[in-house]
Order: sequence, then C-alpha cells, then structure tokens
Amino acid sequence: MNKVGTYEFMAEPFHCDFSQRLFIGHLCNYMLNAADFQSTACGFGMEYLLSIHRSWVLSRLVIEMEEMPKLYSKFMVDTWLANAHHFFTLRNYAVRDSSGKVYGYGNSVWAIIDTESRQPTDIFAVDNGVMKKWIEQEPPCPIDKGVRVKMSDDAELLRTIDTYYNDVDVNGHINSVKYIEHVLDLWDIDWYKEHQIRRFEIAYMAEAHQGDKLSFYREQTGDVEYCVRICKEGDVECCRCKVVFK
Amino acid sequence: MNKVGTYEFMAEPFHCDFSQRLFIGHLCNYMLNAADFQSTACGFGMEYLLSIHRSWVLSRLVIEMEEMPKLYSKFMVDTWLANAHHFFTLRNYAVRDSSGKVYGYGNSVWAIIDTESRQPTDIFAVDNGVMKKWIEQEPPCPIDKGVRVKMSDDAELLRTIDTYYNDVDVNGHINSVKYIEHVLDLWDIDWYKEHQIRRFEIAYMAEAHQGDKLSFYREQTGDVEYCVRICKEGDVECCRCKVVFK
Repeated sequence: MNKVGTYEFMAEPFHCDFSQRLFIGHLCNYMLNAADFQSTACGFGMEYLLSIHRSWVLSRLVIEMEEMPKLYSKFMVDTWLANAHHFFTLRNYAVRDSSGKVYGYGNSVWAIIDTESRQPTDIFAVDNGVMKKWIEQEPPCPIDKGVRVKMSDDAELLRTIDTYYNDVDVNGHINSVKYIEHVLDLWDIDWYKEHQIRRFEIAYMAEAHQGDKLSFYREQTGDVEYCVRICKEGDVECCRCKVVFK
Repeated sequence: MNKVGTYEFMAEPFHCDFSQRLFIGHLCNYMLNAADFQSTACGFGMEYLLSIHRSWVLSRLVIEMEEMPKLYSKFMVDTWLANAHHFFTLRNYAVRDSSGKVYGYGNSVWAIIDTESRQPTDIFAVDNGVMKKWIEQEPPCPIDKGVRVKMSDDAELLRTIDTYYNDVDVNGHINSVKYIEHVLDLWDIDWYKEHQIRRFEIAYMAEAHQGDKLSFYREQTGDVEYCVRICKEGDVECCRCKVVFK
C-alpha cells in the first residue's frame, strides 16, 4: 500500500509565461488534480463523497518553489495525506522531475462539508475513519504550513474586477485557481522580469459566484512580501493571500 | 508512416464549466497542443522552426461540436495536415472518445513567419518542402472551413478589458486561448444554461501585448449567431470571431 500518489504532468505551451516557465496558477491546478486523483485512488474521492452528500473543500494552499518547470518539461507531483483531524486534513506535495530534482513543495488543508447544510462534517465519519490508514509522515515537506495571514486596515484597493463564465467551476463557484491567477495579475510583466515567486499561500474563506465583483486589497508587509485580501460585495472576504518574491 | 497524430487528454475538473463539460477554451488549448506535438513528431515543430528563425503562426481556428467531453472523461484529438500552399497550411482535427464516438471536428490555418521580419515566408522552403509528404486527405472533416467573417459598423461595444500577466504567452503576445475565453465571457452563465456552442471560429489578425486594452464589439447576425470583433487601442483589429449556438 503506497501512501504517496505520483502523477506526471507537462508544462504545456499555453500554460507557460513569457519566461517559458509554468504559470503558478497552472502548477496549483496540477497539484489540486493530483490531490483529486490520489483521494479517488484511496477510495475517498469527490465522486464517492458526493454519493454520501459530502464534498471536499479546499481551505488553504501553500507552495514554495526553488524553480518552476520549464516549457515542455515533464514533472511529477507527489501527494500524500500528512495528517487528519476531525475537521480537517493536511495534504502535502512535492514537485520534482524524474531524476529526483525537486522544484518545490506544497501543503494544503481540506475540510469535508455536508452538501446540504454546507457545514463542516467529521472526517472520521467517512467510511469508518478510512483516512487514518492513509496518513504518511515519512516524505519530507520542509516548508512552513503557514498561519493566518495578518493584514492591517491600510491595505490599498488596487483593482475591482467582474467575474465571468470562465471564472466558474463545476460547483458553480469562482474557481480556486482563478483567484490565484487574479492575485498574480496584480503585478505586471516588468515586475516578473525581475522577481520570481518563492512562496505563495492562499486561504479560502467565502465562496463567490459569477457576477460578483471582486476587490483586491494589497499591502506590502516586507521587502518582497505582499499580502492580498479579496473581497466580494459587502466587503465579505473571500480569500487572503501572501506572496513572497525572490 | 501514419500521417494522423492522435493525442489523449482528459477533461480535468478545473477545465470544466458549471455543466461539468469541458470549456471550449480548454478544448482549443488541447487541439493546439495536439497540433504542436504532431508537427514536432513530423520534424517541423516549433523548436526546429525557431532554430531556422521561423515560427508557426495561427491564423484561423474553427471548431464544430456535437457535444463536449464530460468531466473526467478521456478523449482523443486526431490531427493531420490536410493541405499546404506556399503561404499557409490547413490542419484538421477530430475530437472523439476511444470507442470512436465523435464529439466534433476542427480545422485551422497556419502560416510560417520569419522571426526577424515578422513576415510570412514560403512553407515549402522549410526542409525542401517536407510538409508535402505529410498531407493526408483521407480522414473526413465534415465542417466548413469558414470564410472571412463579415461585420457591419453597427456592432455594439460590449466591454473593454485590461490585459494582465496571465494573458501573455511564451512569445510575449496575448495568448490565443485567452482571446477565446474573453469572447465566450461575453455571455453569462444563465445564457449557457440554455445555449450550447455548436460552432466557434476565430481569425487572428494582429498581436496584442500585456497592458493593451481590448475592446469587444458584438453583432447578432442570426437567430443564435453572433460575430465579435476584438480591437486594441487605435481600433486595430486583433481578432474576429463567429459564435453559433444550438
């Protein structure tokens, strides 16, 4: 029983930026795919959960990258359950090539909600606590899990955008990956010519829907460290991010 | 020598819309990937062309779909060179599942430019006209190639958007797939709940760059048929599309 799932992906042409390196948003997409594939392989995938009126909900995602895969390169995402409590699981990731070179690491926190009440439910109630059997603490994932990102009231409103058809996922909510892209769009190409992302973290707090206007508030919290708050109308906070550049 | 290349893809979760069907933009992305992979396998891929200071340029793409692949389904894109002239090639596509069920077809027109002058160059000058050997007229591709989309001056300006970091491709231009997504974002989810796309065509006319503002002019030209013109500043036309719904 191999508790680590390994999935191969390729840095496709339209998923790479001007520097011919994979976009962070697409990397996160691949990591979330790997999580989905591995939980399905373990017997607690989305399809099974939906059949018992439950659903995985991504609460937090962190990545820390030494380097991004280059155009056309194949890379692996390893993923495994690193911990599970009654109301959340911790899932880790390593992004590497077939020779073992590590591009970077990630971790994520997931909850399981009841699809009717939309409230968190006990993870150990799923299939008699099957997830406990899959916890694997062995592979290293030497990055901070991150804590709640602190922001002051001085964050500057940088941009308000409309949300459209292509922003919406299969559940009818604004797609987790699109938030990441919209946040990274707060910097322009000239900035990215000088700065690569070392660490990116995002916490998902409230769901938004197509038609919601999203406002992006940004605050510089370090030399090359920024925090971003995404709010929908009524100043309801949907996401909070921290971006650290090299 | 098999002149038809076949590539398998999957309708990944974040690439599907609220109806759990693949987004048209992602389908076009897969088709362009298939084109890229097959031309590389034939010896006239982008990497080889760049080494002789040439580049493929997509001039037109048409798709006509009976049905879109459903969430998690695997599907094949067959692609082959259907014709070549001195200044353009015609490449066809069939999208099907492994049982042979056809989702739809596509065709595309590509030119080859000189990367210094940015002018079209003779396709038959590449490797002694190697492309002639790869032309395959056998598989059916029973859809109209399309002609220049006619629009009047009455098209309505529907939206002007900014372009950002994630809109830009490896060549530094606004990504061909992003134009498609921006066009399809002109309709909202309520529209897509009632209407599926039967045919989509796009002609690429001028390149845009990050920071360019793109204006979308739309004109209804039939019962469920619309034409869209995308212009950058100075009213320079970048793309022209036709969208036909079911």
